[in-house]
Amino acid sequence: MTSSTTITSTAVPKTTSVTLPKPSPKIAGQAKDVWTIVNEAAAEAQASLPFPVLNLGQGFFSYNPPEFAIRAAQDALNDVSCNQYSHTKGRPSLRKALAAAYEPSFGRKINWESEVVVTSGANEGMFSAFTAFLSDGDEVVVFEPFFDQYISNIQLPGGKVVYVPLVPPPDNDVRTVSSSEWKVDFEDLQSKISPRTKMIVVNSPHNPVGKVFSREELEKIGQIAVENNIIVLSDEVYDRLYYKPFTRMATLSPELQQLTLTVGSAGKTFSATGWRVGWLIGDAELIKYVSAAHTRICFAVNSPLQEATAVALQEAAKAENTFFVDHVEAYKQKFRIFNRIWDELGLTYTDPEGGYFVLVNFSKVKIPDDYQFPEDVTVGRAKDFQIAYWLIKEIGVVTIPPTEFYHPEHAHLAEKYLRFAVCKTDDYLEQAVERLRLLKPYIQH
Amino acid sequence: MTSSTTITSTAVPKTTSVTLPKPSPKIAGQAKDVWTIVNEAAAEAQASLPFPVLNLGQGFFSYNPPEFAIRAAQDALNDVSCNQYSHTKGRPSLRKALAAAYEPSFGRKINWESEVVVTSGANEGMFSAFTAFLSDGDEVVVFEPFFDQYISNIQLPGGKVVYVPLVPPPDNDVRTVSSSEWKVDFEDLQSKISPRTKMIVVNSPHNPVGKVFSREELEKIGQIAVENNIIVLSDEVYDRLYYKPFTRMATLSPELQQLTLTVGSAGKTFSATGWRVGWLIGDAELIKYVSAAHTRICFAVNSPLQEATAVALQEAAKAENTFFVDHVEAYKQKFRIFNRIWDELGLTYTDPEGGYFVLVNFSKVKIPDDYQFPEDVTVGRAKDFQIAYWLIKEIGVVTIPPTEFYHPEHAHLAEKYLRFAVCKTDDYLEQAVERLRLLKPYIQH
Repeated sequence: MTSSTTITSTAVPKTTSVTLPKPSPKIAGQAKDVWTIVNEAAAEAQASLPFPVLNLGQGFFSYNPPEFAIRAAQDALNDVSCNQYSHTKGRPSLRKALAAAYEPSFGRKINWESEVVVTSGANEGMFSAFTAFLSDGDEVVVFEPFFDQYISNIQLPGGKVVYVPLVPPPDNDVRTVSSSEWKVDFEDLQSKISPRTKMIVVNSPHNPVGKVFSREELEKIGQIAVENNIIVLSDEVYDRLYYKPFTRMATLSPELQQLTLTVGSAGKTFSATGWRVGWLIGDAELIKYVSAAHTRICFAVNSPLQEATAVALQEAAKAENTFFVDHVEAYKQKFRIFNRIWDELGLTYTDPEGGYFVLVNFSKVKIPDDYQFPEDVTVGRAKDFQIAYWLIKEIGVVTIPPTEFYHPEHAHLAEKYLRFAVCKTDDYLEQAVERLRLLKPYIQH
Repeated sequence: MTSSTTITSTAVPKTTSVTLPKPSPKIAGQAKDVWTIVNEAAAEAQASLPFPVLNLGQGFFSYNPPEFAIRAAQDALNDVSCNQYSHTKGRPSLRKALAAAYEPSFGRKINWESEVVVTSGANEGMFSAFTAFLSDGDEVVVFEPFFDQYISNIQLPGGKVVYVPLVPPPDNDVRTVSSSEWKVDFEDLQSKISPRTKMIVVNSPHNPVGKVFSREELEKIGQIAVENNIIVLSDEVYDRLYYKPFTRMATLSPELQQLTLTVGSAGKTFSATGWRVGWLIGDAELIKYVSAAHTRICFAVNSPLQEATAVALQEAAKAENTFFVDHVEAYKQKFRIFNRIWDELGLTYTDPEGGYFVLVNFSKVKIPDDYQFPEDVTVGRAKDFQIAYWLIKEIGVVTIPPTEFYHPEHAHLAEKYLRFAVCKTDDYLEQAVERLRLLKPYIQH
């Protein structure tokens, strides 16, 4: 018999005769996330606006990965082994390519078998690290603003988030500042370390501030980690995009080499956020537990795009391949194209030292008092959600309100900003500049 | 400045000056898994054997996915949107294709927006379901033998596994039996339901027994679920490979439609275990929590292989495409090729009704008394680990010892079996048959 004749099929009408079991409180209590809110608003706006909505919200690229990466993926698909399970720690080809790629900046040999694990994007890699080391009540220090996924990734395995806000310069309403002027309050940080502090998350280059932590700042954070035996989860996914010297936490001392898990991402490295290939590199004694957690969570990562990432890393390392250098120059140019609109409008912003985000200060933008907002952007939400909503609906530009990246108690610190992603073609950014000129009548000087 | 000149690099010697933080007890306590043990033994064996080791252990395919699926993946890689983040619930194209693929067997319309979530393989999908619904101490009923990942997937979010062994026919040492003769002990099942029972996992077609649960069996399990408001996680990843009528739990009653989460896998459907594309289909009220958990765990699934799966499902559904029918016929033939060696050797086995595994009874195989085994396969391990080890090292055939799929307390029920995977080319299976003839001198009649 064949599939089509043997399936037992019964049409059943919908009833309400069972009480559906309740979800875990860890999952049930979560509000609608920012990505859903802005995407829904964007879809609505598109239906009524006379021009296309321009999306500078989520950090995905509006163009393809480099040709050598695409070709490598297409070739991999012809290989039987690249369509079947890979090793749970990652394909040897990719782990070897990663070791080779990190050795120059780590200044040491990396053991690809024991010190590297490939994960389903950096996100699942960090979740695996939290799962590996956190038990109920263990604390993790996170700087605000934070990448929103950190929070649920810490809380799901039972961890408690301890928040330390980065402090922007007080006069940033009246002048454009450097992202380096957002400072760590070390007194605050030190005061929040407890015997339960198990991990500190550092993100450099930083999303959304664009800050590249200085060597001195990393050394001070690192010292606190070493003194208290704290693992540093160093989220360096933007480590191919920096515009001032960049230091890796793991290279600062033998102790920090042991305590640091360095996080990377093929999505960010090769403009392929949809490939879901990330990795963690660190001491074998830490990696073995991250790998054990990852095996339970995802088993293994998709094979063809792992193989493509391995080949792409090798290609990009060749002397004649200028991809990474060109990439940095291209992003400096993107920021030049895009940020001129803020100078023109008289809005200040935080000039990024790395990554592809810019935080713009909207305190001078006056939204009509009688503007009607839906509940999603008012109830329990700071003013930036309303500005972002208005900007989508009236100007047709999608951004991310950064208070999503703060504990509600600290949200007031960021409610005047919006985050713009410039990982788009130059032409797209030119259109955005043109569109943002529509803000002119709403600016109060 | 460019990447190559700005990286701060410090060579640091390895020291032991920090005490590395301890892992979570949930991760730390896990023994070396069966996959690692058999792969290591296989690598060792290959170094000493005069012929290639044949791997019938892990269930990956020794051949490529169908050409129409590969082509769809290669085409997707040329599309910008297919290289960037997809919707966290899955690409609309794939969710629509899945709804269309399941509607005939479900006998109802499926809402692709609210009733489908795409996950990083079925494994992460099931982990997301457990994470969505389990709190500390909630119980989940699992039939033995089980797919080993279920256990850690239940325990990580705090769930407690309750084991119910399937009962093989008592005379299976002396005759080849049908997988339908492995029975659910309903008295045992009923006695293990408690107020804390939140979920039951059913796997049909079953790995490794090959059992396709009968409609009557599913109705009885379903009745217990409905009476106790228990979610049925119905792992149907082998739902394109059955050799007798196959029933889906979700189709049995309106109540079971509401309580059942149906699990599927592109890896199993299209012989692409390395693509890591799976899905859950069910009531919108359940799927929304699975989706929320999945978003936190993996954010989104790789885009190009989602798109390829969508296109492949559409292609396979066309009248002129006989892929699924051919696939079933091909597997009937693979079992005919492979299982004749057991008849020839006089070993009995469990004749599968679905899937691509066969359990063979090795109680008549006599391993030399003085054979030396490593600790991995002796300490805390049942006899099947030793038989499997010996078979790899002496005969060069890799299998999986099925007591890995039992709680240690019930391991004696399965220690005489080995699991063989036949998802290999016919030629490979012929070689395996030839190789297994080497067993002849070891068989006691």
